[in-house]
Amino acid sequence: MIDNLSIIGLGLMGGSLALGAKARGLARSIAAWSRREETLREALRAGAIDRAAKDLEGAVAGADLVVVCVPVLALAPLAMRVHELASPGAVITDVGSTKESVVSAMEALGQRGAAFVGGHPIAGTENSGFAAARADLFNAAPFILTVTARTRTDAAGTVEKLWTGLGCRVYRMSPAEHDRLFALISHLPHLAAYALVGAVFSGADEPASVSQYAGGGFRDFTRIAASDPVMWRDICLDNRRHILHALDLLEGELGYIREAVSAGDGDTLQKIFEKARGKKRST
Amino acid sequence: MIDNLSIIGLGLMGGSLALGAKARGLARSIAAWSRREETLREALRAGAIDRAAKDLEGAVAGADLVVVCVPVLALAPLAMRVHELASPGAVITDVGSTKESVVSAMEALGQRGAAFVGGHPIAGTENSGFAAARADLFNAAPFILTVTARTRTDAAGTVEKLWTGLGCRVYRMSPAEHDRLFALISHLPHLAAYALVGAVFSGADEPASVSQYAGGGFRDFTRIAASDPVMWRDICLDNRRHILHALDLLEGELGYIREAVSAGDGDTLQKIFEKARGKKRST
Repeated sequence: MIDNLSIIGLGLMGGSLALGAKARGLARSIAAWSRREETLREALRAGAIDRAAKDLEGAVAGADLVVVCVPVLALAPLAMRVHELASPGAVITDVGSTKESVVSAMEALGQRGAAFVGGHPIAGTENSGFAAARADLFNAAPFILTVTARTRTDAAGTVEKLWTGLGCRVYRMSPAEHDRLFALISHLPHLAAYALVGAVFSGADEPASVSQYAGGGFRDFTRIAASDPVMWRDICLDNRRHILHALDLLEGELGYIREAVSAGDGDTLQKIFEKARGKKRST
Repeated sequence: MIDNLSIIGLGLMGGSLALGAKARGLARSIAAWSRREETLREALRAGAIDRAAKDLEGAVAGADLVVVCVPVLALAPLAMRVHELASPGAVITDVGSTKESVVSAMEALGQRGAAFVGGHPIAGTENSGFAAARADLFNAAPFILTVTARTRTDAAGTVEKLWTGLGCRVYRMSPAEHDRLFALISHLPHLAAYALVGAVFSGADEPASVSQYAGGGFRDFTRIAASDPVMWRDICLDNRRHILHALDLLEGELGYIREAVSAGDGDTLQKIFEKARGKKRST
């Protein structure tokens, strides 16, 4: 059990972390700070936190474990500030969707003071904000703990215990491996959904007819494309290189399909579709 | 109530039509023909049909309403053969995902003999074949009835009654309008899913890691990309022109996103994402 857990940011992720830690009794006391005071009041009312801090300093004071739950581009500056404020024995972690930039910024601070370990729970919904938070959001979800040659073993253990306590399956990989893999399996699908929804509505004469007749497939895309725009903007800016490579791969595949459609090449189309269908069997 | 309903092809669509018509008592007797004898035996065992015909002739003989439920490219030749065999008072319809080619082929036969009206129920799953058929597949689904200047009013009414009887909301539009709209809201999402699954697996060092860490978004794509390859090959070949236009729109949107990512243009990215998110609210 953690004595003093501190959560910075109470959106979907931070809020679900607070609710989940409360529900499973993982911390004796949970403090939190949010940019919006109303969110802190909401979290207190919901019983998700024990203490609403007026400022970052108040939230970090006395904390054993600080989890920074803010959009990717706000992450490194805020985590660095937390590092200044935290007691030397504390552990700092995060829940950001990209890992290289925050981990290298934190490791550049040197070995003194609180230890940082990067983390990424693979969970979420298209809704954002504390109102969308759920105690069971992380239950049975994969969690990536990023480790490097500089990662402190005890600190990694502390973070791992928090997330296994929340029901996650914890996997370890380097920040670079993480960012490359997630550009493919998470960032690219979201960008494809945004592009597809944009294309369909730009091509339809009447937007109302899209909603009226759309079947299951397209509805899945509109749901994915309803994800938080600021979060995805930040991810795109932060994981630029890997995302550009992933977009190249997608454009290549689309070009391959386009060529076969244009040439009326049914054999090639069938082969492409059969190959993709086969992947489902293995996922 | 239909006296003699005949179903040609007992895959996901034809099988679900048989089961649904039985469950709701829409026909006094249901005859069917399938390429595979085993499928006919299965359908008889499941109580989905009353009579398994040995050949097309046997299935069509005495039918008041014939529904042709085969992949798009097999559709026109088979429907034309049904037209030769059917009694002059019969009505012929189909469930194909593209409508211009089959409707124009059938209308080219002239006004004599059985009447043809094109139809398209917007329902399906990624599974195919009679084993995937469900009595409630069409319940609350949209159904497009295609009408032209040559469509016989009474025949359109007969087809509409069948599908409203199965629980569909029936809409009318021209075959051309249908094919243009569905290239966008149905064919393009499926091609995007096939391309995305191909791109992700071609980029991942270890396919196993894709399945291990993939979150909800990507799983939706793999599910869509598991749709029947032959069905989608036929749709691509048959609706080529509209699909190429839809692919152009998607490539344009992806290029727009790629440019913003490459330039590190956060404002443009956020605007693109917010616009797509707004569409969800209206669907």
